[in-house]
Amino acid sequence: MTEPSLWHAQYAVLDGRVERDVLIETARRLISSVTPGQRPPPPRAQRLAGLVIPGLANAHSHAFHRALRGRAQRAGGDFWSWRALMYQVAERLNPETYRDLARAVYAEMALAGITAVGEFHYLHHDRGGRPYSNPNAMAESLITAAGEAGIRLTLLDTCYLRGGFGRPLEGPQLRFGDADAEAWAVRASAVPPADHVRRAAAIHSVRAVDEPGMKLVRDWAAERGAPLHVHVSEQPAENDQCRATTGRSPVELLADHGVLGAKTTAVHATHLAPDDIALLGGSGASVCLCPTTERDLADGVGPASSLAAAGARLCLGSDSHAVIDLFEEARAVELDERLTGGRRGIHRPEALLRAATAHGMAALGFQAGAIAVDQQADLVAVDLDSPRLAGADSDDLLPSAVFAATAADVTAVVASGRLIVRDRRHLLIDDVPRQLTAAIEAVMGR
Amino acid sequence: MTEPSLWHAQYAVLDGRVERDVLIETARRLISSVTPGQRPPPPRAQRLAGLVIPGLANAHSHAFHRALRGRAQRAGGDFWSWRALMYQVAERLNPETYRDLARAVYAEMALAGITAVGEFHYLHHDRGGRPYSNPNAMAESLITAAGEAGIRLTLLDTCYLRGGFGRPLEGPQLRFGDADAEAWAVRASAVPPADHVRRAAAIHSVRAVDEPGMKLVRDWAAERGAPLHVHVSEQPAENDQCRATTGRSPVELLADHGVLGAKTTAVHATHLAPDDIALLGGSGASVCLCPTTERDLADGVGPASSLAAAGARLCLGSDSHAVIDLFEEARAVELDERLTGGRRGIHRPEALLRAATAHGMAALGFQAGAIAVDQQADLVAVDLDSPRLAGADSDDLLPSAVFAATAADVTAVVASGRLIVRDRRHLLIDDVPRQLTAAIEAVMGR
Repeated sequence: MTEPSLWHAQYAVLDGRVERDVLIETARRLISSVTPGQRPPPPRAQRLAGLVIPGLANAHSHAFHRALRGRAQRAGGDFWSWRALMYQVAERLNPETYRDLARAVYAEMALAGITAVGEFHYLHHDRGGRPYSNPNAMAESLITAAGEAGIRLTLLDTCYLRGGFGRPLEGPQLRFGDADAEAWAVRASAVPPADHVRRAAAIHSVRAVDEPGMKLVRDWAAERGAPLHVHVSEQPAENDQCRATTGRSPVELLADHGVLGAKTTAVHATHLAPDDIALLGGSGASVCLCPTTERDLADGVGPASSLAAAGARLCLGSDSHAVIDLFEEARAVELDERLTGGRRGIHRPEALLRAATAHGMAALGFQAGAIAVDQQADLVAVDLDSPRLAGADSDDLLPSAVFAATAADVTAVVASGRLIVRDRRHLLIDDVPRQLTAAIEAVMGR
Repeated sequence: MTEPSLWHAQYAVLDGRVERDVLIETARRLISSVTPGQRPPPPRAQRLAGLVIPGLANAHSHAFHRALRGRAQRAGGDFWSWRALMYQVAERLNPETYRDLARAVYAEMALAGITAVGEFHYLHHDRGGRPYSNPNAMAESLITAAGEAGIRLTLLDTCYLRGGFGRPLEGPQLRFGDADAEAWAVRASAVPPADHVRRAAAIHSVRAVDEPGMKLVRDWAAERGAPLHVHVSEQPAENDQCRATTGRSPVELLADHGVLGAKTTAVHATHLAPDDIALLGGSGASVCLCPTTERDLADGVGPASSLAAAGARLCLGSDSHAVIDLFEEARAVELDERLTGGRRGIHRPEALLRAATAHGMAALGFQAGAIAVDQQADLVAVDLDSPRLAGADSDDLLPSAVFAATAADVTAVVASGRLIVRDRRHLLIDDVPRQLTAAIEAVMGR
């Protein structure tokens, strides 16, 4: 690989401030020096026009849900009826179609400035729950997909043992389930390593994993210092069932079993009581908000500012991929709280960008998300000459990008030191839209 | 003008359905024939790739607010403190800078597929309220701007007489006010005609126009068969003041004075009582939702589905231009109600597209917004090969566009029979982003 190792950003976000003419040196995958005010740029530096931000972290993804985009919008119903549609897609996938779809989706993410993704992976087995001859065939499909798309992957190998409190796995869920938590651990431990992959764990939810299972997954992650993610309180019905069965809220149950902590990420955390907020914040956990999915699935608006005030680190995910645009996710955190609270300026623009970058990378176990020495060399150039950002004040480039940029404004992306997007084109995947179309048609039919 | 008068759409939305290979003939400014299933296209037809939808109607615009994009996001506060920032911009404008800014903003709209705009125009006079030597200098700036950008304009000449219930105009508001309603009518009647312009009226709000003034504006519009727009219940404080002063809600007050009717558009209509909803619906009025502005200004989520069920016609505006993207406005109507109601599929995708097209055009007084004979010849091509829409099912192109397309996916625009955007470039305005930057810097400084 002979990528240039010297970059010159017209503007760059350094430690929450925007600096001009920033020279960034990279050595292998890391940033080795950062020097603002370098004018003129050295001749051998590759120019990055516009505003350069750290790589965006998509901390919660189910890649295959991308096949539902647009298809699930005629249906009415609620989260649970949407889930039935999603299960129909899950039933159709095999290791090849899963790989091809994930590769195209990860390439779409790369075009949107995402340099690392957390894949909440539960589609482990063949139909009916039969293991593939390679029990991690599906996980390896994701690893291949991310590698080919040029982004890092945190494989959140998900433990999913039951269909609900006291209910067995049913129908498509059989594909998600290992025989028990020990079998999950044996399989998850056998996922092969790769340079671009962080191997990690997930508890699907309190409804899908029993209490001994939670503890086992917790210990597995703790032994490895690995991130541990868990869906929490996306829907009131889950809270009701959990309280009826265990006498506790999902957050209380997780706290009681030692699942919360600085390496834990609670995904959604939408319907919380004040005690839940205090527990999550006090544990130093991350909370992954997925606002465009929470809008799409009618989940509601979570208490993001209260969580942040209590000590939780907010990060972001595009989850079901109704859209893939981390700028939209970031501003939605603020805008949706404005709608419910009647006040503006709840989250500072710098905090929203941090959620989309450094906090997300931390939740995924990567030393990344800032343009600083020893961080992963992830750089994302945002066009300041689009109709959306034209006229932005040079003192307000950061809020302008957070509140007005879109995925379409990303022009260049460096991921772990490698240029993977230039002039809005993916350099490793030819014609991403065509590959998306082919991969989706292979699953859904024409 | 030698524009081609024969168009061939790969797909087109006809009467809420998507048809293939649609041949569309235009004669002067109107559509003269529409024929689906024309394969191969006649050689002289100009090809429109992707999904062709009717022209988008931006039914509520304050063009000059575009200068605040990104600049007003560091501030906290609420709607009223945001208004103070907006007033600072209003103070700086003159007929030349107003024209240049509006032209660039209307060109941004054209690039986003908007073929007609309703400008809620209240910045009538020079500082301190001194009339310009041409009393309609500012209105004529807007007329020139829309003409140069190639889109139609409904000039909603706005009556603004007082700073609030029982309060005189103050500071920047002096520029908005005519001496009294009669003086407003004299000036509004003198706005010159133009082919691309519909002259119409607005009552700024119940707080800014007294009851005799409302009646006069109502009669002025009725005599001319002109659209009449009015800001209604954007903020609870307005409702409280109105009820304290008049004993009625803003909607009740407008209804009592005969302001509501089929040519009336209530803008925002966010904080309504059930009686207000019944009055608006029963009158056959339009309601213009501005969801991205309502998010931005922390206004809240209005009762859109109840209004539609009661008989109101929903339409859309980008209002403060925090973003200019009618696709985002359209889906936000549904998504924000999902957040507050916990249900999906409240508004059908076809209804959301109709709000963005036919309903908006009706609210602006244009026979447009459908691809059908005798409608204004407005055609907007949406790229189906972007990462956002790739993989869309051919049976679900309409919901896919409504829920996943963005302004950046508009590739070509025909407005009143004239091709104004091709290959994402404005054909009449060279380098729209540069003109936006220049126009905003001329007002705000560098």
